[in-house]
Amino acid sequence: MEQPETFRALGVAEFFYRNRAIAGFTNPTRSVYQTIRELVENALDATEMHGIPPDIRVIVKKLQSESDFDLLEITVEDNGIGIPPEHVPRAFCSVLYGSKYVNRQSRGVFGLGVKMAVLYSQLTTGRPVKVVTSPLGDPAVYEFEMTIDIKTNTPKVLKKSVSRSNNFQGTKVTLYIEGSWGSAKSRVVEYIKRTAIIAPYANIYFRYPEDDSYRILRFSRSTTELPPAPREVLPHPYGVDAERLKSMIEHEEPNKTLLRFITEHFAGVGRVTAAKFLRESGFGVRRTLRTLKDKDIVRLARAMKTWKWKRPGGEGLSPLGEEILKLGIQEVLKPEFIATTCRPPSSYEGYGFIVECGLAWGGAIQPAQTPSIIRFANRIPLLYDENIDVTRKVVDKIDWSTYKVAFPAPLVVVTHVCSTKLPFHGLGKEAIADIPELEHEIEMAVRDCARRLREHLSRIERETRHIRRLITIKKYIPIVASSLSSILETNSKDIEDSLFKMLEARRHGG
Amino acid sequence: MEQPETFRALGVAEFFYRNRAIAGFTNPTRSVYQTIRELVENALDATEMHGIPPDIRVIVKKLQSESDFDLLEITVEDNGIGIPPEHVPRAFCSVLYGSKYVNRQSRGVFGLGVKMAVLYSQLTTGRPVKVVTSPLGDPAVYEFEMTIDIKTNTPKVLKKSVSRSNNFQGTKVTLYIEGSWGSAKSRVVEYIKRTAIIAPYANIYFRYPEDDSYRILRFSRSTTELPPAPREVLPHPYGVDAERLKSMIEHEEPNKTLLRFITEHFAGVGRVTAAKFLRESGFGVRRTLRTLKDKDIVRLARAMKTWKWKRPGGEGLSPLGEEILKLGIQEVLKPEFIATTCRPPSSYEGYGFIVECGLAWGGAIQPAQTPSIIRFANRIPLLYDENIDVTRKVVDKIDWSTYKVAFPAPLVVVTHVCSTKLPFHGLGKEAIADIPELEHEIEMAVRDCARRLREHLSRIERETRHIRRLITIKKYIPIVASSLSSILETNSKDIEDSLFKMLEARRHGG
Repeated sequence: MEQPETFRALGVAEFFYRNRAIAGFTNPTRSVYQTIRELVENALDATEMHGIPPDIRVIVKKLQSESDFDLLEITVEDNGIGIPPEHVPRAFCSVLYGSKYVNRQSRGVFGLGVKMAVLYSQLTTGRPVKVVTSPLGDPAVYEFEMTIDIKTNTPKVLKKSVSRSNNFQGTKVTLYIEGSWGSAKSRVVEYIKRTAIIAPYANIYFRYPEDDSYRILRFSRSTTELPPAPREVLPHPYGVDAERLKSMIEHEEPNKTLLRFITEHFAGVGRVTAAKFLRESGFGVRRTLRTLKDKDIVRLARAMKTWKWKRPGGEGLSPLGEEILKLGIQEVLKPEFIATTCRPPSSYEGYGFIVECGLAWGGAIQPAQTPSIIRFANRIPLLYDENIDVTRKVVDKIDWSTYKVAFPAPLVVVTHVCSTKLPFHGLGKEAIADIPELEHEIEMAVRDCARRLREHLSRIERETRHIRRLITIKKYIPIVASSLSSILETNSKDIEDSLFKMLEARRHGG
Repeated sequence: MEQPETFRALGVAEFFYRNRAIAGFTNPTRSVYQTIRELVENALDATEMHGIPPDIRVIVKKLQSESDFDLLEITVEDNGIGIPPEHVPRAFCSVLYGSKYVNRQSRGVFGLGVKMAVLYSQLTTGRPVKVVTSPLGDPAVYEFEMTIDIKTNTPKVLKKSVSRSNNFQGTKVTLYIEGSWGSAKSRVVEYIKRTAIIAPYANIYFRYPEDDSYRILRFSRSTTELPPAPREVLPHPYGVDAERLKSMIEHEEPNKTLLRFITEHFAGVGRVTAAKFLRESGFGVRRTLRTLKDKDIVRLARAMKTWKWKRPGGEGLSPLGEEILKLGIQEVLKPEFIATTCRPPSSYEGYGFIVECGLAWGGAIQPAQTPSIIRFANRIPLLYDENIDVTRKVVDKIDWSTYKVAFPAPLVVVTHVCSTKLPFHGLGKEAIADIPELEHEIEMAVRDCARRLREHLSRIERETRHIRRLITIKKYIPIVASSLSSILETNSKDIEDSLFKMLEARRHGG
């Protein structure tokens, strides 16, 4: 029975290649969606994050079609800041290499996305990724064709050329994948539409195959006003653990005092607060970093986690704003009533976040047995795995009858969460976990909008009731008028007129 | 507005440390459960996979308690094959290093589990992991204390000693973590119970803190008969992609013929089949590997994916068997009726799998509005994320009234899926994705059991109806007897007796 065990180390690219399903590359349908999504998100990050109103072109071509599989050419082009040529090979062909490992709100966070798409392309078609880029301020255009060496997680550059820029600035990426376009199409179209809702400051051009021809979907920007770009921020003391603290201290001058270290490296901690914290936690204010043993660092980390700091705010975050959210909802859902709200900043585990919410009712919305949900996270539309998302949980636990909503009802709940670190359920970035602080904020936001919906519905109810009463009263006015006219010996018509006038006045008065 | 982008490579340990939530380390409650689970699964794999009836000891101690957090000492000990000392440091303190990267059914698959627990221990308490191991056939006992160097993904051995074995064989691991025992306890207890259901051939001893004392949960094996150990198997031609094929070919003798290569490296492919495949796919039978260009390999991979091979079977898989499943269900649920079924082997993407299912009804089961579900995968109990699991999907889509089930009903559905590669939703191994082939097999299994449940319920219904009729008929027998007695001029009592006898006879006759 005895089997010898063989131990070995797996390369990191090999690991993700084997487990690509966890990053959203589960099947030939979702992989198409995931590939396009990763490229579009990179394009948006390369533009709006740097103050450039995005011009995004997405072109899908069907090169070949065979039973369940299509050979697809996917190209996404942006007018962003470009990528310095020395970084291009690793930015596309080395897993866990990237520019997004900073404490800042951005769409990409794992440094995996586009590499997973390149891996998927490589394993289904064996073709290299093509990248054309012209970095900001560089007159040259660089062209690359590359693959990933999966064993070593290093790029293999097959072709490289430099030419003069012909007014091109930004990045254009082309990937070849096998996938099922027929079943992916509707999801991709929905993704592009929702991206247009959340980014009304972008021009988006999307060309895709339909039947034997192609279709074009075009969104023109309705404003050139960009929301303020998110900024990198210092970590909050709640957000560090012993391990991270140790690594921060190792990179420091050993003679630095604890007081100075804390003041310099954490958000919202001034000298007075830092000194108070150190005293209350039993650390000397003048103590230097060099005197800290491992167990002191563990104790410091725990003290930082439990002390009563000012909670992190929304520093550096970039919510959409109630107005843009309202515009987006109006544009797409065309409802009778909209309420939007933007919650004050909150935090979990030391990471600031902001929740925005919109509630749309009636109009073009079809009644359904439960509220429909449209979710965004750091301006990414989330399309899959709604049933494990915190928003679904919140919406399901609310007793909507409290807000005068009786199902079937034409109700859509829109949520947008932005944070320097979003608690996604998986690497595919499709559902947000039910962290208590986040759940609370979403619930407050949804309830706030729901209260305004109730007012709206109550007003409609009151008006309806009032109108019914008016109709009833009006029916009797001629009779009352005629009776009064015989008592008062007046013209019945005059009395009738003045009664109607009184009624109207009362109605408009409230 | 312009921000410079800083590119950098993230270490693999750092990546998983930052994104530990995807491996189940989401919060102080679930992290306790996840830590214990990873250690118990390793203990079971180290024993039963090698034909050793498992003796597992799990001991949780609360060393300190502070508001929401407890400092816990978690020890798991097994009587398994042990770990060769040269592999111990990396097996515990190097992410993506392990013995499970083979094509075989096993509990661990990602090579992450125990390292994630070590990382979590390190970042919450800063304490090293303690490992004591005595490998099979080695008279020595090796003791280690180690941490992970997160930047470099290498082990730091703080202490190491060797002594003579004192009848100890196996492995004992101790970890210190901060977690919330109060809220984790019930989940952990449930996990241990379900493990006992699926492994009735194991002795499990579990000691854990309760109030100011501790409790012991003990399961003794009811059989020493182990299911056959899973074996490593060759991949099926459906299961390889261009990238994998390329890497296989690179490791081969370039003068080997394609025919021989395919016959040697793939499951269930003989010379005749291989030759037929190559001819039909336009490859020469005598063609050598050296002549294959990259695009030929892509073409070969696609041909292999689409040709009509014999589908992979259950080679090397180790299902539980209907009997053990029935015993486990009987033991825990104590129902009135059980149906179990074991489906024939099936496959998806070239990976064989087997679905087993049990359906329990009535008895000690409390009626509920929907069927309850108990899920296992490669003998791991799955406790979280039921709502995205394929079994939930199947159970929800079945119209149970077809099977004479009207809710509220006392119905539990138990499923066990085993495979060399399970399509988990995430690295936390809590939910299985709805791969069509798998969904189909689970549906067939559940429906098969449901049909037998219907027969059972019909039989009960028939019997109830029959008894009701008997009661009715019996009421009239004395009247009929008395009328007959006046016609036949017989004793009414005799007629009554014989009528009752006839009725009884008919009843027992069917």
